[in-house]
Amino acid sequence: MTTDDVARLIERLSFASLDHFRPQTQGHQEVIFCSGKTPSQVVEIAERLVAAGGEFLATRAESDHREALRARFPSADVNELGRIVHLAPDPPTEPTGRGLVLIVTAGTSDLPVAEEAAVTARALRNQVERLTDVGVAGIHRLLSQTDALRRAAVIIVVAGMDGALPSVVGGLVRAPVIAVPTSVGYGASFGGVAALLTMLNSCASGITVVNIDNGFGAAAAASRINHQP
Amino acid sequence: MTTDDVARLIERLSFASLDHFRPQTQGHQEVIFCSGKTPSQVVEIAERLVAAGGEFLATRAESDHREALRARFPSADVNELGRIVHLAPDPPTEPTGRGLVLIVTAGTSDLPVAEEAAVTARALRNQVERLTDVGVAGIHRLLSQTDALRRAAVIIVVAGMDGALPSVVGGLVRAPVIAVPTSVGYGASFGGVAALLTMLNSCASGITVVNIDNGFGAAAAASRINHQP
Amino acid sequence: MTTDDVARLIERLSFASLDHFRPQTQGHQEVIFCSGKTPSQVVEIAERLVAAGGEFLATRAESDHREALRARFPSADVNELGRIVHLAPDPPTEPTGRGLVLIVTAGTSDLPVAEEAAVTARALRNQVERLTDVGVAGIHRLLSQTDALRRAAVIIVVAGMDGALPSVVGGLVRAPVIAVPTSVGYGASFGGVAALLTMLNSCASGITVVNIDNGFGAAAAASRINHQP
Amino acid sequence: MTTDDVARLIERLSFASLDHFRPQTQGHQEVIFCSGKTPSQVVEIAERLVAAGGEFLATRAESDHREALRARFPSADVNELGRIVHLAPDPPTEPTGRGLVLIVTAGTSDLPVAEEAAVTARALRNQVERLTDVGVAGIHRLLSQTDALRRAAVIIVVAGMDGALPSVVGGLVRAPVIAVPTSVGYGASFGGVAALLTMLNSCASGITVVNIDNGFGAAAAASRINHQP
Amino acid sequence: MTTDDVARLIERLSFASLDHFRPQTQGHQEVIFCSGKTPSQVVEIAERLVAAGGEFLATRAESDHREALRARFPSADVNELGRIVHLAPDPPTEPTGRGLVLIVTAGTSDLPVAEEAAVTARALRNQVERLTDVGVAGIHRLLSQTDALRRAAVIIVVAGMDGALPSVVGGLVRAPVIAVPTSVGYGASFGGVAALLTMLNSCASGITVVNIDNGFGAAAAASRINHQP
Amino acid sequence: MTTDDVARLIERLSFASLDHFRPQTQGHQEVIFCSGKTPSQVVEIAERLVAAGGEFLATRAESDHREALRARFPSADVNELGRIVHLAPDPPTEPTGRGLVLIVTAGTSDLPVAEEAAVTARALRNQVERLTDVGVAGIHRLLSQTDALRRAAVIIVVAGMDGALPSVVGGLVRAPVIAVPTSVGYGASFGGVAALLTMLNSCASGITVVNIDNGFGAAAAASRINHQP
Amino acid sequence: MTTDDVARLIERLSFASLDHFRPQTQGHQEVIFCSGKTPSQVVEIAERLVAAGGEFLATRAESDHREALRARFPSADVNELGRIVHLAPDPPTEPTGRGLVLIVTAGTSDLPVAEEAAVTARALRNQVERLTDVGVAGIHRLLSQTDALRRAAVIIVVAGMDGALPSVVGGLVRAPVIAVPTSVGYGASFGGVAALLTMLNSCASGITVVNIDNGFGAAAAASRINHQP
Amino acid sequence: MTTDDVARLIERLSFASLDHFRPQTQGHQEVIFCSGKTPSQVVEIAERLVAAGGEFLATRAESDHREALRARFPSADVNELGRIVHLAPDPPTEPTGRGLVLIVTAGTSDLPVAEEAAVTARALRNQVERLTDVGVAGIHRLLSQTDALRRAAVIIVVAGMDGALPSVVGGLVRAPVIAVPTSVGYGASFGGVAALLTMLNSCASGITVVNIDNGFGAAAAASRINHQP
Repeated sequence: MTTDDVARLIERLSFASLDHFRPQTQGHQEVIFCSGKTPSQVVEIAERLVAAGGEFLATRAESDHREALRARFPSADVNELGRIVHLAPDPPTEPTGRGLVLIVTAGTSDLPVAEEAAVTARALRNQVERLTDVGVAGIHRLLSQTDALRRAAVIIVVAGMDGALPSVVGGLVRAPVIAVPTSVGYGASFGGVAALLTMLNSCASGITVVNIDNGFGAAAAASRINHQP
Repeated sequence: MTTDDVARLIERLSFASLDHFRPQTQGHQEVIFCSGKTPSQVVEIAERLVAAGGEFLATRAESDHREALRARFPSADVNELGRIVHLAPDPPTEPTGRGLVLIVTAGTSDLPVAEEAAVTARALRNQVERLTDVGVAGIHRLLSQTDALRRAAVIIVVAGMDGALPSVVGGLVRAPVIAVPTSVGYGASFGGVAALLTMLNSCASGITVVNIDNGFGAAAAASRINHQP
Repeated sequence: MTTDDVARLIERLSFASLDHFRPQTQGHQEVIFCSGKTPSQVVEIAERLVAAGGEFLATRAESDHREALRARFPSADVNELGRIVHLAPDPPTEPTGRGLVLIVTAGTSDLPVAEEAAVTARALRNQVERLTDVGVAGIHRLLSQTDALRRAAVIIVVAGMDGALPSVVGGLVRAPVIAVPTSVGYGASFGGVAALLTMLNSCASGITVVNIDNGFGAAAAASRINHQP
Repeated sequence: MTTDDVARLIERLSFASLDHFRPQTQGHQEVIFCSGKTPSQVVEIAERLVAAGGEFLATRAESDHREALRARFPSADVNELGRIVHLAPDPPTEPTGRGLVLIVTAGTSDLPVAEEAAVTARALRNQVERLTDVGVAGIHRLLSQTDALRRAAVIIVVAGMDGALPSVVGGLVRAPVIAVPTSVGYGASFGGVAALLTMLNSCASGITVVNIDNGFGAAAAASRINHQP
Repeated sequence: MTTDDVARLIERLSFASLDHFRPQTQGHQEVIFCSGKTPSQVVEIAERLVAAGGEFLATRAESDHREALRARFPSADVNELGRIVHLAPDPPTEPTGRGLVLIVTAGTSDLPVAEEAAVTARALRNQVERLTDVGVAGIHRLLSQTDALRRAAVIIVVAGMDGALPSVVGGLVRAPVIAVPTSVGYGASFGGVAALLTMLNSCASGITVVNIDNGFGAAAAASRINHQP
Repeated sequence: MTTDDVARLIERLSFASLDHFRPQTQGHQEVIFCSGKTPSQVVEIAERLVAAGGEFLATRAESDHREALRARFPSADVNELGRIVHLAPDPPTEPTGRGLVLIVTAGTSDLPVAEEAAVTARALRNQVERLTDVGVAGIHRLLSQTDALRRAAVIIVVAGMDGALPSVVGGLVRAPVIAVPTSVGYGASFGGVAALLTMLNSCASGITVVNIDNGFGAAAAASRINHQP
Repeated sequence: MTTDDVARLIERLSFASLDHFRPQTQGHQEVIFCSGKTPSQVVEIAERLVAAGGEFLATRAESDHREALRARFPSADVNELGRIVHLAPDPPTEPTGRGLVLIVTAGTSDLPVAEEAAVTARALRNQVERLTDVGVAGIHRLLSQTDALRRAAVIIVVAGMDGALPSVVGGLVRAPVIAVPTSVGYGASFGGVAALLTMLNSCASGITVVNIDNGFGAAAAASRINHQP
Repeated sequence: MTTDDVARLIERLSFASLDHFRPQTQGHQEVIFCSGKTPSQVVEIAERLVAAGGEFLATRAESDHREALRARFPSADVNELGRIVHLAPDPPTEPTGRGLVLIVTAGTSDLPVAEEAAVTARALRNQVERLTDVGVAGIHRLLSQTDALRRAAVIIVVAGMDGALPSVVGGLVRAPVIAVPTSVGYGASFGGVAALLTMLNSCASGITVVNIDNGFGAAAAASRINHQP
């Protein structure tokens, strides 16, 4: 394609430049990051994406964003816990990835981030399962699930506080493991920094890490892996 | 396997507990992290690994570690730039991964980390290629290589200073992208923290990150991905 | 001028020392930083500036400051998004700078900071244009605007999250580039610190940086440059 | 005792105030922290302690401190790895604590800190055992030693990098667990800060923490616990 | 016990994995950390714990958590200051620890953390006393209580701002001292970091430290010590 | 005095230990730090101080503290801007210090901290004057006041943002200069850390520094200096 | 130009991708950042640049780099203090910028950074002057040079420690001011972070900042400004 | 004095601007900060100061600076421990301050900083005494010296590690207390940051603080106080 061809795929609004070339480079449409945008901006972008591709995914949707999207797109799936809204194509698509994306959480308080990951992974055409509250302080909770861990094609591990769970999971499996630190904790957890550093310094080899609370990014990375030809 | 079976796979030295169960859980032997070990400890561990599996990989090998390993294992491959030593099995193994691991560096000063990644990835049975000195300040250097980027199964992007390269690469390809911040820079680069933060906050979706200067970890993660069944 | 002459140009209120010597040293009046001041203090300072120079500019104006200024100066221009209020002289002045100040933003969420810059630059007698939502994750959005970038006399680049945009822009043009990190992001963006560090470590040479969210300062710097004789 | 009585127990040198009241308040003599002291200062303090109590313990002893102490006190036990020197009383004392102090290390590189702890704990009249290189990346190495863990009266866990080991140990036993972060690691381990934060945020309840590399302090705390009447 | 036996002790809810094996490994049931859980999740977990063991302890209980627990368990003890709720077994248990746990606070503003510690220690079967507002700026307040300090089996010292109190207490007694930094302070106290660092660097030997504001953890550690056989 | 005499001067409330020995050691009564205390606790402490000494000073008094104190002590002086309440003795005392305490502020937004300092200094029996809004960006505002600066016995300089003012003041006078960083600013001011670091690194010799926003502490230090015999 | 044309301007060495398109985009050749490169790599890059453009500039040249360059290019100008090597074209070029670039330093210890800036600015075709050791602690040293400051087209201010000088300079002139923090200082200067933060928070409007010790970057920015058409 | 008069008092060397106006503004000559200066620069500055005032003081003098100064000024007093050189006037001057400057150190390792303070204070015409190794871990060492503390006009307290000593000293005396954090410690002492934060957050009121290891600055501040008219 020429530069002019690509330029024609960019739709300029007064407040945004929508990139309709992205499905070709990335395999999926742009995703709407709601934070810092007004509800009406979010709705307008969603409308353009639906017009172009028949679906949208909106993350970090606060209650006013969620209300505006629900009002405009009544059939959208609104996940309150994960603060994420997905309008699936009609008819819905089947998973196209190679295997299962397993989302493991250390504690109940990590569920919002895990839900963001789960909804994103499914929207990006992956089969998803969850394994919840298996943190390392009671290690037998995890070890009794070793078989489930070994069935997954990609594992996303979501943990706050000490962030130690990915190191143990990474040592139990051969599959790719993506660690997501969460801001769960207090004091010297520093809003998730403690868990982030733990994961970056994991003594298990080959663990990769995304930003604090970035369930979306973990799922996007898992989907890149799971759709590797 | 029973707990007792596993216990028998652990070989206790006075200063280390060698884990010969790891090939079954991880797909490869333990790797020797030389930092903080004496040369004779490193050599002894290498001997046990060779006895058990016919090969070893030793990272963060300073000159005294490298000398000791070279003396004891004359046929080992010693990579001075990457501070890494590999004794390949005899006869050497062929790559078993699904595709190509491409290692992209932003600048010449990032090469030591890239070499650590390259030697590791090859030792873990992957096909490896390199693309060097294509940082974003002269963006056409990268764009002229777009086809090469799109041929890779997994891309490792190594960058210091502003750490901006993975964001651009991530936007050009669908493949998994692993970002490695390096400690190249000065002043407010804070030994690689600036690049690390850039990568954790990448505006390209689905980029994952490893520790600063952790070429080994990036390659181990790439190999997990590339050997996904 | 003697020290006594200068002392006479300082107007002492109970809570402020207004510096009417500043137009001679800086080329423009004092600007009101509203944060930490009461609305009535802000209005009183504005009155004194209007009395002395026929105009005022008030930044970081929260809603109560904006209300108070709008009530007292109905003809003032109140920019809600940029939290900035400008009372232009009557009749309005023409731009006096040498060329165009172009304000480039990485994403929609960066617009508040960009608007603060735009209003300030215009108040300081510069011609202003905007280029919005051209972040590096979809690099062709930016590259298709290369000609526009090269027409500018000074470029202000506003970006949060990874803050990578100024490095790419800096490599495309010869003009001065002022980078403004924003607090857009979450987790390890640390309120804009990640973007700030990226910009300070830019691999493009000759990029300068201002404080996080400091659209005002960037515009003031651009105006210094654009009015260079 | 009166204040005057206590004052008589303080021996003033030109560069130090030796506190011979400490055995009564703390149960043992002052310990010499060599860092920042000259070898001759260290020797002089050691002489005064021997004169008063027949023994001394010197930590953070660099090679010049160790040489000076070895020359003056040929019968002292010099531990090179732990950089610690102990002159035991003659005849040696038996352990007086209630049970076993077990020192567990995550990796071989953590041994210097573990040795500082071991020598200190023994000098403070405790029975000591070691369990080495049982980090969480190969969790079965640790689990196969659960019985040994449960026999200890106090456990000191020494770990660098991700610092995850104390969380797992803490969940396996009822005994007090003291976590010692080490500076083993690189990049975002920040000289042991990552491990320190992991331990402070442990999801296992009732883990306490000492300073980075503070094997001495961990052993002193273990001895306080083990000598609880 | 076999792995299957242990697996049967784990009760899986949709949002949590309750670990009924914990009384055997830890000596007490799981404790509910309310932060990040909904009130109904907290109540449901409490019900399961009561069903299994006849009691529960819930920390970091905000007003909505406290209301929900009070409504469901009218006989529970709700400590508003310490944000902690305890349902004691019926009939109540006697302390089983070896001696007294003394909780010392530097200032009145540290009381919420001290109360969390006091309620936890009592729930874990320890005898508890308090000594309040004896910070080091008026050192005679503390010194006049030296005898009380020396009667304790374990001392928890709670302090914010400069966090200096544990160093002085540690020098006065032989008993184990657990230091709890609090977030009391402003400016460069950095939410308790200043006190945390003071305590980690204590010049008194054998002081151990828990996370900022972690009264619960300090009491759990004290109980481990106090129940040492 | 004996220890018993001192112990009798400590008045134990359930939540505080009032130190009536302090006037002898410090030259003035305890000051009430309201933050983290309930209004009724503050009132009760105030009552005890009035009973003992006829006056009180309460800092960091939020609106509920101020209301409670105003209701109980109608003649107290309540300074809203400085969040500080003083009940002066009746009849009021004269300043007893050697000279003038001059409080200099860089900008209008720094006034709350300056007021806390001014009320405190006066309560501690010092003569106080103010010089407002003379920050270094318009250096002639300060230079025109050089004579006023040189008349002071002690100077307190209050500044946020770049915190540069104390360096210039310190170079103009021989008197003691106490620098108070304020949290005025945004972005990389990090809540006053930038100003704090500037002041700690002042190139003017002999500048001392207190905590961020600590107007009280600066005044207490100034009073120690001004009452030096 | 087409993408193919640009690709032909990139010269691929085994360790670098030389960008001969840069003179068209940036107005000057690539500059060699020696740090992390071997002397022979530096020499080889220099040779290619000389072949293409007749000159080179090499920054952060340690003694081994300087020796190698001096040996290969005897006519190069080697500035030891600034660790910078320039081979000027033959015959040398005249300054082409619009006015004077003035480099102001706070103290003698800041000279190495100032020299890096001075050599760079001259190499980039600007007229350069220096004003040395005029820090704010003796403010009259600076004020006596006000006329010199006002004659400059662009001012680079180099300062460590408190970094206060740019704020004062910025208030005295209308010209663009680029602030360069240096790592001069100790303790809480944190290697230049204190000065960096001071400059980012300058109360003078329109000051821009570069990385710590980045004399090169400041000069490159000044040259962009000074060559603005 | 006119600006021209002052300008004549500034002596311009190629690398420094000597400020001979400083005795009038500050009460003493400029002091030479050797760090970052060459020995010959230091000697030349010393020569000019001797020519103007008959004495000099040079701080942070490394061994090469000390050698050069000793060679040129054989009668200078070279303090190796404090890295400080003083050439006293001939005949020496008597102390002119109002009382005694007492320098208190927490431990032997803090002596280098204390010596810098002691030599500086004496050079600035103050009577000086020392009290060494009285840290808070053995509080009776300090309490037995209460009378000595109360005799001082100004107290400088030098402490590393936990930095707790100034809080206790401040509570015992009415005199001004200047706290000097030192870089003594390891791990989470962060080069003195822990002690610095402790001191900034002191619960004793009216403690002021200087930079880490800044014995010079503490003495300069003490001298300002002690020479207050």
